[in-house]
Amino acid sequence: MTVGRRVRRIRTERGISQEALAGAVGVHRTYLGGVERGERNLTLRSVERLADRLGVPVRELIGDGPEG
Amino acid sequence: MTVGRRVRRIRTERGISQEALAGAVGVHRTYLGGVERGERNLTLRSVERLADRLGVPVRELIGDGPEG
Repeated sequence: MTVGRRVRRIRTERGISQEALAGAVGVHRTYLGGVERGERNLTLRSVERLADRLGVPVRELIGDGPEG
Repeated sequence: MTVGRRVRRIRTERGISQEALAGAVGVHRTYLGGVERGERNLTLRSVERLADRLGVPVRELIGDGPEG
């Protein structure tokens, strides 16, 4: 599962809207949509901010294998 | 420990020179030096290439906590 799909899964499990999560990490909602579709090559700092806001360790967002 | 320090530790454990690793992942040696000093905000694809070349899972390079 890509980082983006994990972000979407955890975000929806926690009932956080795309708008709210995007705002919390300082990106536009459409950018986050691209992240969740696996269209963005995130930096580690972005992943850290997302993990922090979702309340999960970075490792929970990072899998092994090529990012889809 | 930051991603950069883990890259350095694993690289030196495996006796791989900075030059060789940089070449294998398609970056300049000085760029890799900056990575190992924690001065670079790596993208996930760069981390994947490094992990792949070092023969470790991505998770072994990614810790939890802010990247120093």
